[in-house]
Amino acid sequence: MYRSHSCGELNASHINQEVTLAGWVQKVRDKGFMNWVDLRDRYGITQLVFDESRSDKTVFELAKTLGREFVVQVKGTVIEREAKNKNIPTGDIEILVKDMTILNSALTPPFTIEDETDGGEDIRMKYRYLDIRRNPVKNSLLFRHKVAQAVRNYLSDLDFCEVETPYLIKSTPEGARDFVVPSRMNEGQFYALPQSPQTFKQLLMVGGMDKYFQIVKCFRDEDLRADRQPEFTQIDCEMAFVEQEDILNVFEGLTRHLLKEIKGIEVEKFPRITYDYAMKTYGNDKPDIRFDMKFGELNEVAQHKDFPVFNSAELVVGIAAPGCASYTRKEIDALIDWVKRPQVGASGMVYVKCEADGTYKSSVDKFYDQDDLAKWAEITGAKVGDMIFVLSGPANKTRGQLSALRMELATRLGLRKPDEFAPLWVVDFPLLELDEESSQTGELAQQSGRWHAMHHPFTSPKPEDMELLATDPGKVRANAYDMVLNGNEIGGGSIRIHDKATQQLMFKYLGFTEEEARNQFGFLMDAFQYGAPPHGGLAFGLDRLVAILGGQETIRDFIAFPKNNSGRDVMIDAPSKIDENQLNELHIKVALN
Amino acid sequence: MYRSHSCGELNASHINQEVTLAGWVQKVRDKGFMNWVDLRDRYGITQLVFDESRSDKTVFELAKTLGREFVVQVKGTVIEREAKNKNIPTGDIEILVKDMTILNSALTPPFTIEDETDGGEDIRMKYRYLDIRRNPVKNSLLFRHKVAQAVRNYLSDLDFCEVETPYLIKSTPEGARDFVVPSRMNEGQFYALPQSPQTFKQLLMVGGMDKYFQIVKCFRDEDLRADRQPEFTQIDCEMAFVEQEDILNVFEGLTRHLLKEIKGIEVEKFPRITYDYAMKTYGNDKPDIRFDMKFGELNEVAQHKDFPVFNSAELVVGIAAPGCASYTRKEIDALIDWVKRPQVGASGMVYVKCEADGTYKSSVDKFYDQDDLAKWAEITGAKVGDMIFVLSGPANKTRGQLSALRMELATRLGLRKPDEFAPLWVVDFPLLELDEESSQTGELAQQSGRWHAMHHPFTSPKPEDMELLATDPGKVRANAYDMVLNGNEIGGGSIRIHDKATQQLMFKYLGFTEEEARNQFGFLMDAFQYGAPPHGGLAFGLDRLVAILGGQETIRDFIAFPKNNSGRDVMIDAPSKIDENQLNELHIKVALN
Repeated sequence: MYRSHSCGELNASHINQEVTLAGWVQKVRDKGFMNWVDLRDRYGITQLVFDESRSDKTVFELAKTLGREFVVQVKGTVIEREAKNKNIPTGDIEILVKDMTILNSALTPPFTIEDETDGGEDIRMKYRYLDIRRNPVKNSLLFRHKVAQAVRNYLSDLDFCEVETPYLIKSTPEGARDFVVPSRMNEGQFYALPQSPQTFKQLLMVGGMDKYFQIVKCFRDEDLRADRQPEFTQIDCEMAFVEQEDILNVFEGLTRHLLKEIKGIEVEKFPRITYDYAMKTYGNDKPDIRFDMKFGELNEVAQHKDFPVFNSAELVVGIAAPGCASYTRKEIDALIDWVKRPQVGASGMVYVKCEADGTYKSSVDKFYDQDDLAKWAEITGAKVGDMIFVLSGPANKTRGQLSALRMELATRLGLRKPDEFAPLWVVDFPLLELDEESSQTGELAQQSGRWHAMHHPFTSPKPEDMELLATDPGKVRANAYDMVLNGNEIGGGSIRIHDKATQQLMFKYLGFTEEEARNQFGFLMDAFQYGAPPHGGLAFGLDRLVAILGGQETIRDFIAFPKNNSGRDVMIDAPSKIDENQLNELHIKVALN
Repeated sequence: MYRSHSCGELNASHINQEVTLAGWVQKVRDKGFMNWVDLRDRYGITQLVFDESRSDKTVFELAKTLGREFVVQVKGTVIEREAKNKNIPTGDIEILVKDMTILNSALTPPFTIEDETDGGEDIRMKYRYLDIRRNPVKNSLLFRHKVAQAVRNYLSDLDFCEVETPYLIKSTPEGARDFVVPSRMNEGQFYALPQSPQTFKQLLMVGGMDKYFQIVKCFRDEDLRADRQPEFTQIDCEMAFVEQEDILNVFEGLTRHLLKEIKGIEVEKFPRITYDYAMKTYGNDKPDIRFDMKFGELNEVAQHKDFPVFNSAELVVGIAAPGCASYTRKEIDALIDWVKRPQVGASGMVYVKCEADGTYKSSVDKFYDQDDLAKWAEITGAKVGDMIFVLSGPANKTRGQLSALRMELATRLGLRKPDEFAPLWVVDFPLLELDEESSQTGELAQQSGRWHAMHHPFTSPKPEDMELLATDPGKVRANAYDMVLNGNEIGGGSIRIHDKATQQLMFKYLGFTEEEARNQFGFLMDAFQYGAPPHGGLAFGLDRLVAILGGQETIRDFIAFPKNNSGRDVMIDAPSKIDENQLNELHIKVALN
């Protein structure tokens, strides 16, 4: 036993007790005759005192050799502190040290082990084990554990069974983003790491497991955007004998439970909006609804006047930015520059100030009178003191631009509050979408059948839309849904196709030959012949979910050992070269391009 | 909602209720005018009845089309059953079906979905999703979940934090059994899949995480023996500021909790025996102590008589097999043949019957008188009615042979009861052992320093044995321990070295050059310079632990989708070839030998 107590638990009730503590030296304040040391462990900080007059001379001298992050064990008496610190639980007491052992010395850490550190991202990644000592990272990892435990207990209580599915699975030709693993025992063959346990969870449903979940690592070898990781964690779920409604209820229940249990927040029944509504109203299928600023479509009231930019646009659409009528010309120009950046891509922006006296002042006063602008205000919901911003152009593109502006404005206006939670369901996703590369030439692509599954190829179309598959595939809606929280898709799923005939039809519309379908999904198609129940499910991204619940924008601090944007672990220096022998054993050669 | 109830919950209290059930057709008994169907889901079986006189004609006819494993939804009334079945919870009732929908048809399954199936191992693996419908497999998976949940909740309550460590890590030159993953973004470089999160959990201790655990997949690309899997699950644990005693107490507590919670069994404080004692007493470092049959060393009493076989042997050792004095000559000969099989490798065996009248009858009566044999009986603890079996030869080899015989006898005598649990700790393992290939030439190997770490290179030697490192490394004991349950090592771990100096010394004795040590473990050695706390931990093999708790010999049914002995998943047909493009993207080529 290295300690009788942790560094977080002693208080006035322990005064006069003899205790043993162990931990790291956070701070040393040497006043010559007195020496205070903050001792830190996972649980907190306790002040140690070494006093020339009260301490053993050897111990007193030893204390003078302590440096930051030394690991020590101390024995001493809990005494009342003169200068109490109300900010920490142990602030009423300190330990008068009688005996001390230096368990380990420490080099000066390359950055300060403080909540606000002086270390940059790169150095903190390289010394991640030191970064983890800092409260923000340590608490994020503890928080993640708490969330995962809450998820597991909630689902277990509902009879969900966590089943571990394999990590060494089969690569599929469409799995261009698979990580693969050469097999030593099966020459020239490869396993793949799962991008998700999708097929296995469906097979578990065929196997009668009824309610499955798993908190599981998944892998995707894609070019990493900021805040993406090649390995990420999913809360993966599937249920049999359910309809969409059942799934939405169960996982709305889970999310509500998490908000209650983890954040102490009660939320209303989640709003449900359709994909079409989300795109029209927020320009986005994962709208942040902590704030309003709904889109107002202005074609009817803004076109057929003399403003050629609007007249020629497919869509004229605006939002009311609350309280922004006071923006200066400079601030407005800055915003206009912002929407014109290549990342957003607007060619210009019209604005309308809703003045205090009820009049409107716009950048297009030349073309629109007060009555016109009043209609804009009505449609966008603008009130006195607001500013209406209007973009125009091709519908989809313009919606995307206005959505970006909406989020930017909300951020500037402080409307994206990290301690406020606004979950919702987005439902009725399209079943199919055009391949990106062919999306510019819609009709042609449609003719050549280059559709692909928006969710995945096992997603069930809505029965009432089935007949559109042959005539207007883009209009077919899926039994697919996303859970959105604060502008992030935190979960998504669908009701699956459970009969072989529909699945074959789907593969046909997705442009698979029978052989391709057989090669890739043969075992699933086979399984479906032996009595597959109706089933569906969803998956949450745990990294993101935890970050949002923790009120953070980035997932990195919620991952113990993250990789950088090149997929490298800079701490252990992976990936790395391996030696010839190992390659030979695996029946592969390196072939640099 | 496809159902109002599961197939496991209806009983007499539900009589006259209208219910909706969904599930699989387990069995059809068609008596012409009456048709009984057993409907099955994960939760149980409910009997459906279709009656020509009471059922709707269409429904009655539809029932006649049902085959095994069809998926159906039925609506009907709970009625009292005439012929009650006391063996199942729903045995008092049946459902008079009013309406039925066939949700899916099913081909006849390739083996029967019964507790005792007619399907062989291979076909059940290929159709694993059907095998999972069988109670023995389904219940094993549910049981595994229950155990994992109990572990997580117990450890969480003790402030352990589950931290996910990365799966894409660094391959080390000694990692000959690493599975590797070529990196697309880092040309010519490879990740490795972890054989265990060993270094990461130690880094978490350096990072102040204090108490870590994780239920985590690990990977080892070794030639598979029966009942080994290339991917397996560990309960991985580590604690800071602890001594061996602390760790033994915590994980003894966990195991006792599992036995209580899962099996309803209270066990005494676990016996602790040393590695040396285990080897001498059971010939084995994972003894099954559900039964006695301790080894008795007979050199003193059996040598220096006229029996040359014993006189020339390094070790003469026997066990008392309870109640075996009645064995016939034929049975004894069969046992002698058994120990002479190449897998065991004894050259012969001596036996002594402890007759009812207190006399002894042995196969070596020519050389030993009754007084001699009485001493053998005393040393082996043989009682009237027992049989003593004696082997002789080189010490280690002979102990191994007698251990095999001990287990075989226990099996034949029914002493290895699956519902009895006898856990223990084996402690004081040797720190080092000779490489297998050099173990025949001990002295030379010792001179050339070909020792390797028995546990792993971070295991701490016992401080009092440190000085032996230079003079007699084979004698150095480690702070290493195994938990053994019913003849299986279910967990093992050690106190780690936490200072750089000792670690460097260890690498030296293990024959690493400084550069090799640096390449392989540089980041850990670096970390140790920044204030590593004393720490230690252990890991349980979850697959094995669950199987033993479930009273089973093999782990396969406790893994949802296991691989066969060639590391293949025969259901999904993995591993498999991948296409040229994918190889090119990964900068590798297949190079068959």
